[in-house]
Amino acid sequence: MKKIRRRNAFYAQSGGVTAVINASACGVIEACRKNKKHIGKLFAGQDGILGALNQELIDTSFETDIAIRNLKYTPGGAFGSCRYKLKNYKDDDSDYKKLLKVFKAHDIGYFFYNGGGDSQDTSNKIAEFCKSNNFDIQCIGIPKTVDNDLPLIDFCPGFGSVAKYTAISTLEAGLDVASMCATSTKVFILEVMGRHAGWIAASSALANENRKKPPHIILFPEIIFNEKKFLDTVQSTIKKYGFCVVVASEGTKNKKGNFLAESGLKDAFGHTQLGGVAPFLAELIKAKKGYKCHWAVADYLQRSARHIASKIDVQQAYALGEHAVKLAIKGENAVMASTKRLSDEPYKWALTKVPLASVANIEKELPKNFITSDGYHITKSCRKYLNPLIQGEDFPKFKKGIPVYSEYKNKMVKKKKL
Amino acid sequence: MKKIRRRNAFYAQSGGVTAVINASACGVIEACRKNKKHIGKLFAGQDGILGALNQELIDTSFETDIAIRNLKYTPGGAFGSCRYKLKNYKDDDSDYKKLLKVFKAHDIGYFFYNGGGDSQDTSNKIAEFCKSNNFDIQCIGIPKTVDNDLPLIDFCPGFGSVAKYTAISTLEAGLDVASMCATSTKVFILEVMGRHAGWIAASSALANENRKKPPHIILFPEIIFNEKKFLDTVQSTIKKYGFCVVVASEGTKNKKGNFLAESGLKDAFGHTQLGGVAPFLAELIKAKKGYKCHWAVADYLQRSARHIASKIDVQQAYALGEHAVKLAIKGENAVMASTKRLSDEPYKWALTKVPLASVANIEKELPKNFITSDGYHITKSCRKYLNPLIQGEDFPKFKKGIPVYSEYKNKMVKKKKL
Repeated sequence: MKKIRRRNAFYAQSGGVTAVINASACGVIEACRKNKKHIGKLFAGQDGILGALNQELIDTSFETDIAIRNLKYTPGGAFGSCRYKLKNYKDDDSDYKKLLKVFKAHDIGYFFYNGGGDSQDTSNKIAEFCKSNNFDIQCIGIPKTVDNDLPLIDFCPGFGSVAKYTAISTLEAGLDVASMCATSTKVFILEVMGRHAGWIAASSALANENRKKPPHIILFPEIIFNEKKFLDTVQSTIKKYGFCVVVASEGTKNKKGNFLAESGLKDAFGHTQLGGVAPFLAELIKAKKGYKCHWAVADYLQRSARHIASKIDVQQAYALGEHAVKLAIKGENAVMASTKRLSDEPYKWALTKVPLASVANIEKELPKNFITSDGYHITKSCRKYLNPLIQGEDFPKFKKGIPVYSEYKNKMVKKKKL
Repeated sequence: MKKIRRRNAFYAQSGGVTAVINASACGVIEACRKNKKHIGKLFAGQDGILGALNQELIDTSFETDIAIRNLKYTPGGAFGSCRYKLKNYKDDDSDYKKLLKVFKAHDIGYFFYNGGGDSQDTSNKIAEFCKSNNFDIQCIGIPKTVDNDLPLIDFCPGFGSVAKYTAISTLEAGLDVASMCATSTKVFILEVMGRHAGWIAASSALANENRKKPPHIILFPEIIFNEKKFLDTVQSTIKKYGFCVVVASEGTKNKKGNFLAESGLKDAFGHTQLGGVAPFLAELIKAKKGYKCHWAVADYLQRSARHIASKIDVQQAYALGEHAVKLAIKGENAVMASTKRLSDEPYKWALTKVPLASVANIEKELPKNFITSDGYHITKSCRKYLNPLIQGEDFPKFKKGIPVYSEYKNKMVKKKKL
């Protein structure tokens, strides 16, 4: 049993935010407040890990319990997030040295990092670096990504809500185009996120249990785009049902391996910045088949739609934040708080932990048996996996017709001389 | 007092559908069912007015009361809508003659047409033609359009819900980009509907009461796009607040009067089919100022989002359908069921009626005093007008994580020899 010495904690949000990442923050902060014996103050990084690097620490103790509770209902990242990748400390340890100085100056004994694969990798490296420098700290990863591409977890918090948004949007827009197709729009294309994994596009299939209804065609990054087959399928769908709803992953690629909507710009991680597969497909269909098309690009709307968040997603996001604190207090280090599925129906799940080293930098694509043999839809196995993730609603409070989303004081800790 | 002779009624949905057009259908059908003394069967046109022209009439009496009630919660057009404009009967009366034959064959004494400006014009012409042919019928218009561009009504059913969707989406995506702006996206652009009137774009301002918060810039079709001023405003907004949220009407035009995102295609009414002002602006900002941009195009998602419909919009849509039937039974003809505002806060309104001739083919733009002098935001007067329209939620029932939207038998009436 580790000797109890009360120390401070640091929490940071990383990468693209979600409808429920603040629910994880809520779990972390509420658990810290309940464990004053072990944890003194909880500092949140202003703009993620940059807050630690620049010693811009938010003192969360200035926020009321009510404000902290409302983190559960507020989308975006309450303390700011960032896209910043630490180098490998074996090549360049300057960032790690900075972090260590800040951790020492503010007596930080607990490091909670809330992000995707890159962030779990970062947490792991920080744990290693601190250990090799004999600095005692518990580094715990908290999963988050709408892409659902982390391994060793039932699903990634954030994904459940974007899946629900995508299913509902497909259902609603599908009813719209079905009403109009006699004389107007024949094809509706919804573009959703997903560079390398088609989880979000797959979730659109939850709109209807029957393939005769929208979405008729799903384009996955895992399946090479075949123009002729796609256009023929659009045409045969319209002949059968009068209209065709397509849900396309932003990362849909051609046989050369190029994104259909390559814009050429890259973000800080070297990922190509995408957007525009929907207008590309609309132009293609119009030019080659002559059908009237409408298209939507959901972009940030899909991952910030807290108003229609999945209850199970909110619950797990919160539980994983709380669990991370408990793991830290137990003396765990270099692990990610995780979940495992116990049963599909009724959906049962349990909290667990996995070594950070085993999740870092692995992208979980859709398993082959989750995609139908024609490459355009999901199988029963996939449906069985996805169904529980969108269950339940957890509406925010509304005032004057819009949700009440909290704002935070974000009072900074006085910088110390390092 | 008109002598009571029980006759059948015809109802059709016209033009782009909305989240609440079926709530109007619900009002019509429930009112007809309560007034059996006057109204026999209610036939709905399969795909709008085409259903009457082709004698494809849906016998709504086969639908249960529960199914009809659930029309209130189901987006899209339950009986199909269409974009089909009747010619002026003075130029070509062939369509009118067809209608008259169908009306006579099925003893239709009540004509309810649920649509926008074009449809009110059509209703008026049908009323005139029937009168000049000594056919006794009550033609009543029921307003509907997300564009909110009908005159002589407080607001158009459908608009309240798209306004609520737009305000909430702007709020949520604004929190997302605010979290990311330190190292990533600086500009978020949301493209919304509105060819000639900026009502939907204006409603995004309900996301926040303060111009320091999103949306920072609104682009209206009523205001000529000035590239330099726009780019300078984006830049100064980013300098002040760290990021910039732009909401752009699809119909934003340059000084030559061309849409920024002209695609060159036209629909059945000769309207240019738009889409793509958001990617256009994103490219412009990236090229000229170098900021990282994200963009979304809401398209059909905005007008079909029944899951987040405005309660007041649903109420008025229903009330106008019901009111149309009452007006018809009173012997009114060539009028549109309408509303007038009695007070802003608390919001009070009353049902009324206006002559079809006075609403037909008039597009109500945003009044000049609703747009701020810089052309990029709304005034207090506009806010006072818009605020009540998004009040209240009226969530559908959910099952398995998605809303329960009804399907209809749509059993066709046997065709008669004309």
